Parts: sequence; C-alpha cells; structure tokens
Amino acid sequence: MKINLGAKNCLYPILTTLVGANVVGKPNYITIAHVGIMNHQSISLSMNKKHYTNAGIKENGTFSVNIPSVEMVKKADYCGIVSSKKVDKGKLFDNFYGKLKTAPMIKECPINMECRLIQMVDLPQHDVFIGEVVETYCDEQYLTEGVVDFSKVRPILFVMNDKSYWKLGEQFATAWNIGNELKNS
Amino acid sequence: MKINLGAKNCLYPILTTLVGANVVGKPNYITIAHVGIMNHQSISLSMNKKHYTNAGIKENGTFSVNIPSVEMVKKADYCGIVSSKKVDKGKLFDNFYGKLKTAPMIKECPINMECRLIQMVDLPQHDVFIGEVVETYCDEQYLTEGVVDFSKVRPILFVMNDKSYWKLGEQFATAWNIGNELKNS
Repeated sequence: MKINLGAKNCLYPILTTLVGANVVGKPNYITIAHVGIMNHQSISLSMNKKHYTNAGIKENGTFSVNIPSVEMVKKADYCGIVSSKKVDKGKLFDNFYGKLKTAPMIKECPINMECRLIQMVDLPQHDVFIGEVVETYCDEQYLTEGVVDFSKVRPILFVMNDKSYWKLGEQFATAWNIGNELKNS
Repeated sequence: MKINLGAKNCLYPILTTLVGANVVGKPNYITIAHVGIMNHQSISLSMNKKHYTNAGIKENGTFSVNIPSVEMVKKADYCGIVSSKKVDKGKLFDNFYGKLKTAPMIKECPINMECRLIQMVDLPQHDVFIGEVVETYCDEQYLTEGVVDFSKVRPILFVMNDKSYWKLGEQFATAWNIGNELKNS
C-alpha cells in the first residue's frame, strides 16, 4: 500500500563530489551531492548561496568536479562540514590545474572534470551552476580497457533521507539491451 | 598518473528513473537517468527534444518521477528503447494519479514523486525540465522507521561510460558526521 510522505525529494542515491574553484586566487573545495546531468557534455551543481565557493565560480567562470573514492570519505565529509572562511581546504589535498588554469583539481580523486560555467539557474536559496565539461582526468588504475570502471573508482553515494553514505554494488545488466527481451513478447 | 580522457562526462553512477506524463490524455513513460537535484524541493530531468513525452510535460505542466527497483530492470530498460510513438507504454504498468491529476505514476515502483514544472533550461538538443516535488508516495515495505530505506528500494544505478546498470552497495558512514574526526586533527 502506498503511503504519502509529503513533498519529499527521494532522488537518491546521488554521487558525492568535491567541487573545486579558485576563491581570491586560492584553491578551494566544497562537498556537493546535489548534482545532475544536463546533457552529454554538461552537468549541474546546486550550491546554497551562503557558500564561500560560489563567488569563485562566478568570478572565474570555471570550476572542477572531483569524484572521491570511499577511502576518502572522511575528507569528503569534512569539506561539507567546515567552511572555507575558517579552514584552508586547499591544503587538504594535492592540487593541480588543467586547461582552464583557474579550476583547481584534487590529485587523490580518481576522476576530475574541468568545467566552464555556461549557464546559471537562480533559485531562492541556491545558485545552480551549469558547466560544460572541458577536459576529464583519470588515473590509469581506474580504467578497464580505456573506459572508466566505477567498480575500481568506488565512488561515495549519498542519501539525504537518512543522511548516509553508501558504496556502489555490482554491475548486473547492460543498458539499451536487457529490455530487448520484452520486444515482441 | 593522470590520463586525459577528453571532455568526458563521468558524473556517474546516476539513478535510473521512469518519468511519467500524460500525452494526448494518456499515461506515458520514458526512462531517464540524466536527472539531478536542484534544491531540497526540486529536481531536473534532461530529455532529448525528440522524445514523445516532452510535449505532455509542457502541455500539462506536470510530470512524475518513478524509481524502479532492480527487479524491474527489463521494463525500465525497455521504456528507454522503444518509442511511445510505436508502443503504448502506459499499458506496461498499473497506473495511478495523485494530487496533480495529470501526472501518471507507476504502482510497481517503490517510490513515486509527483512534480509541478516550475522552470525549463533550453539546451541545443535537450529540454531540461525543473520540477517541484508536490507529493511523494512510497510502499510501506520500503520504509524503516518511517524513512525511505534505499537498501529495500534497491534502485537501478546507471553508468553511461560502459552502458551498464548497477546495484546499490552497503551503507558505510554517516554524513555530516564522519568528517568530524578530522576536526582539530
């Protein structure tokens, strides 16, 4: 039997990311799980307007999206707890820069995407930044036959409903394929 | 060592959903994994402009987001393979309607969110629909102490890079908590 939960956002689990931007010329990171895919080339980040990092994204028109692995959960969570107004989060990681020059990235994260800000959605309490992926970096050990293998990446999945982090389970089917079994059935 | 992958969207895994809308007065569904969270109340769907469902969302200003479980993977994938121009996908499921009256939902899916269209982002090949969640429905068996338990929901996670579906793994840490261990360390 269906129960009404009220207006409850249940679009979970969702990927935990560390978003990077230069703020006042220095690398800075914040934990963001309220992300999304806009099309094959671009992604969205929803960031409360109170956050320190937003100004850096607006100033430079660039940001990075770094995907931490489960081994990094303490640092990933920490970057969502403490404010950059108090702690220099750029010092928590080995930073590097790519093509865009102003989007700091985290070496320890298996995957890094450098993004150029292309559009914004202005919501009452949130800036939604839409960025086009300009270049993606990945350590060789997370690839299988040249393709990113998420069983090796071991991303951190987030669920707001009970404020928890989850691991990725096993791959079990092929997309645009398993459904063919229902054709003409 | 970091390898350049080119401009590769790696914001995966991401939740596989079945988006519902009335089209020409009939329930219709399409598989969409390019979703996102805009804020606590609202979510985004990126849908290629060629899709049949887009017109229904625009016409009614409503849609639903249904979360299928791994047991439903064949139907979920099938709804992404076949077009509603050819197959009546409303007949694949038990449908129900809620407060908004024009957003069909799928009884078999553990979670259903009824949404009101509040904004659109127009991208070259995609309509991005931003919807406010108006009401959420969940079967009692997927709750633990009144909260949605995603280990019971067993959602289907999607990875574009190798076109695959994945299960959710285990919960392993508490958010806004485990990072506290790094404070003053």
